[in-house]
Amino acid sequence: MEYTGVEWRRGREEDAVGRLIARTSVVRLGPKGVRRAPDRLAVEEPLELRVDGKPLAVTMRTPGHDVELAHGFLLTEGVIGAVPDVSSARYCDSVDDEGKNTYNVLDVALGPGVPPPDPGVERNFYTTSSCGVCGKASLDAVRLKTRFSPAGDPVRIPFEVLTALPDRLRTAQRVFDSTGGLHAAGLFREDGTLLVVREDVGRHNAVDKVLGWALLQGLIPAAGCVLMVSGRASFELTQKAVMAGVPVLAAVSAPSSLAVDLAEEAGVTLVGFLRGESGNVYANPERICPAQTP
Amino acid sequence: MEYTGVEWRRGREEDAVGRLIARTSVVRLGPKGVRRAPDRLAVEEPLELRVDGKPLAVTMRTPGHDVELAHGFLLTEGVIGAVPDVSSARYCDSVDDEGKNTYNVLDVALGPGVPPPDPGVERNFYTTSSCGVCGKASLDAVRLKTRFSPAGDPVRIPFEVLTALPDRLRTAQRVFDSTGGLHAAGLFREDGTLLVVREDVGRHNAVDKVLGWALLQGLIPAAGCVLMVSGRASFELTQKAVMAGVPVLAAVSAPSSLAVDLAEEAGVTLVGFLRGESGNVYANPERICPAQTP
Repeated sequence: MEYTGVEWRRGREEDAVGRLIARTSVVRLGPKGVRRAPDRLAVEEPLELRVDGKPLAVTMRTPGHDVELAHGFLLTEGVIGAVPDVSSARYCDSVDDEGKNTYNVLDVALGPGVPPPDPGVERNFYTTSSCGVCGKASLDAVRLKTRFSPAGDPVRIPFEVLTALPDRLRTAQRVFDSTGGLHAAGLFREDGTLLVVREDVGRHNAVDKVLGWALLQGLIPAAGCVLMVSGRASFELTQKAVMAGVPVLAAVSAPSSLAVDLAEEAGVTLVGFLRGESGNVYANPERICPAQTP
Repeated sequence: MEYTGVEWRRGREEDAVGRLIARTSVVRLGPKGVRRAPDRLAVEEPLELRVDGKPLAVTMRTPGHDVELAHGFLLTEGVIGAVPDVSSARYCDSVDDEGKNTYNVLDVALGPGVPPPDPGVERNFYTTSSCGVCGKASLDAVRLKTRFSPAGDPVRIPFEVLTALPDRLRTAQRVFDSTGGLHAAGLFREDGTLLVVREDVGRHNAVDKVLGWALLQGLIPAAGCVLMVSGRASFELTQKAVMAGVPVLAAVSAPSSLAVDLAEEAGVTLVGFLRGESGNVYANPERICPAQTP
């Protein structure tokens, strides 16, 4: 078979940006034939989150910003609401088979008087309502859990500001350009100023990192801010916006039905298909000021 | 404010395709101004999976094909390996606040002698290895759990067959075109024949539905087949391919580092950036026959 003529070797080394990018070698097939070429991959590694020593969740994530990730996850699951709710966050001594710290286990100690999370927090979040498992029960669960309400946020965002955000988000992405493999989330002020951008192999992780950063900066509830995500707007991402008090959630792609329902009920302005010079507002459009016609 | 001139009403009704699409009304903003327009949303609803009456997992999914979803999930988590491992699957009497069955709780009864899953199956999958939480431990966990190995699969796929798959997948998508909000997964024979396509708001759910369908058809291990996904190739999706014995996994977008590591170790051919007339092979390229130069 002709294919055996292609040399297939693979070396990988950590890139200068840390553990974010892995180098590899690929076989590139196309109309011009077959060739071996270097390539870069977005690094994916497991993170085990422990709370007061007890394992709570494992997520596959892009390494780095793990303390922010933990804060954002605990915030958006309703476990913490402010900086003093966490007394410490440190990497445990999880070692690989060469005895090196993996930096893949993070232990968070809760502050005095903060109740520990339900061990099944991920699974039970949507099923705490007294009625059956359904969309409405999921909305009820968010309403019961959230400490903040974006509903009364008086912020107004000019549409011209909004349409500039996708390009700013993309420009701020460090790793995507070289790997094409990452989701991004960014938090913006009402005038379009970028506060923070985070990238991750998991879309929910990128949002958790952004919201955890905001919590650590004392910016939660995130009044007057826009949370922008690179992909679709799901129920889960909308839930995270609500739990962090974000008044405007904007997505490059489509929202789901339950994301729209939750945004409507919780008072979040939900924008989808924000591309080029246009976008759709699916809930609470009063916060978006239309473009001025010249 | 000018915006108040825009009427904002919203009515939603179930579409003819069942519970897959919800109708809504959006405020469309763009260079031509502001207008209200009808729109369609991909429906997202929670599904609680119970095994022998005990809650195991809740996933946000597109309703429908739930029995396949449950089979695929249990297959790729190592709980079941063949049709007789499930004796029945039925919707429980979960009712909403109007007393209607939500069809959002599915109870699976395992066959005789099938051990029940670890209640923390989702969380513990990646941490069962004796060494620390790391990429290698995640690979070890898959190797220990899988009943099938794609490694020896002798299938050869002409590159021309492979490059035709993204269009076939897109053509077979029913809901994406009207909502833009769904991930798709498809299973193809080695000659490019489409066996099944499933769409879902969650990428892992779309793959579970495809693999659950294959299990119910007696096609697992999926020898000689190509699993094609509409987005990125993560560790999790590669794990699902391994657990179902799929020899070739192809993705429209980028793979992660851990997806490549797992594909290499488990003998899965991993193709990424499969677009137009080109694609990259990240692992086990010997199964892909290059295009014949005329």
